[in-house]
Amino acid sequence: MDHDARVAADEDFLGLREVGSGRFAFDVTSRLARADERLYGGAAVALSVAAAAAETGRDALWCTTQFVSTAMLGRTVDLQVEVLAAGRRTSQVRVTATTDDGVVFASLGACGVLRPDGLAGTFEERPEVSPPGEGDVGFRPSGRDGEAGWHTAVEVRTAEIRRHPDPGPGRVCLWLRRSDRGPVTPAIAGYLADLVPLSIVRGCGVTGAGTSLDNTIRIGAAAETEWILLDLRPNLAVGSYGHGIANVWTEDGQLLAVASQTASLMELDFDPLTAFSSHASELRGRNG
Amino acid sequence: MDHDARVAADEDFLGLREVGSGRFAFDVTSRLARADERLYGGAAVALSVAAAAAETGRDALWCTTQFVSTAMLGRTVDLQVEVLAAGRRTSQVRVTATTDDGVVFASLGACGVLRPDGLAGTFEERPEVSPPGEGDVGFRPSGRDGEAGWHTAVEVRTAEIRRHPDPGPGRVCLWLRRSDRGPVTPAIAGYLADLVPLSIVRGCGVTGAGTSLDNTIRIGAAAETEWILLDLRPNLAVGSYGHGIANVWTEDGQLLAVASQTASLMELDFDPLTAFSSHASELRGRNG
Repeated sequence: MDHDARVAADEDFLGLREVGSGRFAFDVTSRLARADERLYGGAAVALSVAAAAAETGRDALWCTTQFVSTAMLGRTVDLQVEVLAAGRRTSQVRVTATTDDGVVFASLGACGVLRPDGLAGTFEERPEVSPPGEGDVGFRPSGRDGEAGWHTAVEVRTAEIRRHPDPGPGRVCLWLRRSDRGPVTPAIAGYLADLVPLSIVRGCGVTGAGTSLDNTIRIGAAAETEWILLDLRPNLAVGSYGHGIANVWTEDGQLLAVASQTASLMELDFDPLTAFSSHASELRGRNG
Repeated sequence: MDHDARVAADEDFLGLREVGSGRFAFDVTSRLARADERLYGGAAVALSVAAAAAETGRDALWCTTQFVSTAMLGRTVDLQVEVLAAGRRTSQVRVTATTDDGVVFASLGACGVLRPDGLAGTFEERPEVSPPGEGDVGFRPSGRDGEAGWHTAVEVRTAEIRRHPDPGPGRVCLWLRRSDRGPVTPAIAGYLADLVPLSIVRGCGVTGAGTSLDNTIRIGAAAETEWILLDLRPNLAVGSYGHGIANVWTEDGQLLAVASQTASLMELDFDPLTAFSSHASELRGRNG
C-alpha cells in the first residue's frame, strides 16, 4: 500500500472530502462519533493525519490534536490545512476544524519523506499476550446501549498479559480491528488508539473513564495488519488529570505508532471494559 | 512554591515579558539559544508553558510546540496566547510566536485546576542510577566551542544505569540542573528535557543528533528539586526520522513530567556526549 492508496483508504473510511486547495470537509457519521453522539477524539486525530498527508503528498510523521469543542452526529465540519513550513524533506502543518459555532479541534503535525536507507530501528518490546482469537469480546464506552458510535465500527478484545516489558499499575492490552476488516493506516492507528484514559483510571485503582484534552500520535514504518495490539501504559495522574501512552503493534510484532494523551479523569460506578464484557456475554447468551 | 511564584520564576529565567492582554515578548538570549545561536527547542516549549500559565492563571497540564522556523540570538520575538476554550476546570490554549519574518513556533496546550482530593498516582518506575555527584561532567551540543547556548546555563552529567525498568536499545540517563541552582518548574522541565534525539541515534547504533520537529510535555505534581534525572527512552526510527520519550524525575524520585518528541535524525562523526566528555576532561586538566 503506497501513499496514495493510504490516503484513498483513509478518505473512504473517514468520509473525508477534498473541497478546495487546503480545504476539506467531513460529516460526523456514526463511526466518527462517541456513544453520546459527539465527535470521537480518535476520529479527530485520524482526520487530521489523513488531511495533512493528502494535502502535502508526504507521509504523516507526527500529529497532536487538541479538543476545543465538539460537533454532534450528522453535523458537517470544515477542515483547513495550512502548510506552515515546506522543507525539502519535512512539511510542518496546522489543521483547524470548524463549524459555524467555532473551532471544534486544532492540530499540529508534520509530514515528511522517509529516506529508504535512513536510520531505522525499534527500541520498544511488545508484551507477550494471548492471541486475538481468545480474549473476551467487545467494549461499551458508556452504560447505555449506543446505537451509534466508533465502537460499532471496531472490534475490541481484551488481551491477557503473560509478560510485560515494563510492568506497573494500569497496564492494559487490547486487540482491535476494523469491523470491515479494512487496513490500519497511520490515521486509523490514531483512531483506534484513543483508549489511554481507561488505563490511567485502572492505574489509580478505580473504575472510570476520561475526557481527552488531546491525542498525539508518532508514526513508524507502514505495515499491513488486520488486528492491532494496543499496549496501554499510564504515566501518572494528579488532581484528576492523567497522562499515558499507547504503543500500537501489528499482529506480527511491528511497532506501528506510539500514541499519547492527557485526559480529565472521572470515577464511574462501572468499568467500561468489564461492563461490556458482561453485556457481550449476555448478547452471546441471547444469540448463541 | 505556588502558581504565581512559578510564573514569576519562569518569567525571570526565560526573560518573558507580559506586554498586553494575551501578548508577551522575549529576546533570544544565550540561555534560550543553541550553540549555533538559533532559538533552542526546549526554550520554545518552556516559553509556551510559562505564557499559557501566566495568561490563564491555571497550572499547565500539557503542551506541544511545533518548530516552524527559527530566530537568531538577540532577536525579539512576540508571543500571542489565545484561550480557545475556557472551561470551569480546563483552559485549552494556543500560543503563536512570531517575528516580522513570520511564525517561529506554534503551540497547543491546556491549563487546569488540580483537584486537591482528585485521582492521583505514579505508574512508572525510576531507573536505578549513579548519584548526580559521580557522573562525567558536561555536554557540548556541537563540535564547536559555543560561547552562547542553553548548555552554558545548565549542568549535565551522565548517569550510569544500574537497573532499568524497561531496558532496551538507546536508554540514556542524564542528571541536569540549572547552573544558577534555580527551581525546576514544569516550564523548566520542558527546557531541560529536549535531549530525546540523542537517545534515538544511540538506539540506532550510530553517533549523531537530531533536529526536533516538536517538543511535547505532560506535567505531573509540582515538586522542589535541584537536580532532575532525564530517563531517555527512544521508541523507534524510520527513514531518518525518530520518536522518543523522556521521563523527568526529581532527585528524590517523583515523576515531574513526561516529555516526548519527533526529530529528523543525522549521523555525525562524533557523539555530542562523548565529545564533551573529552572536552570536559581537557578543561579539567587545564584548570585543575
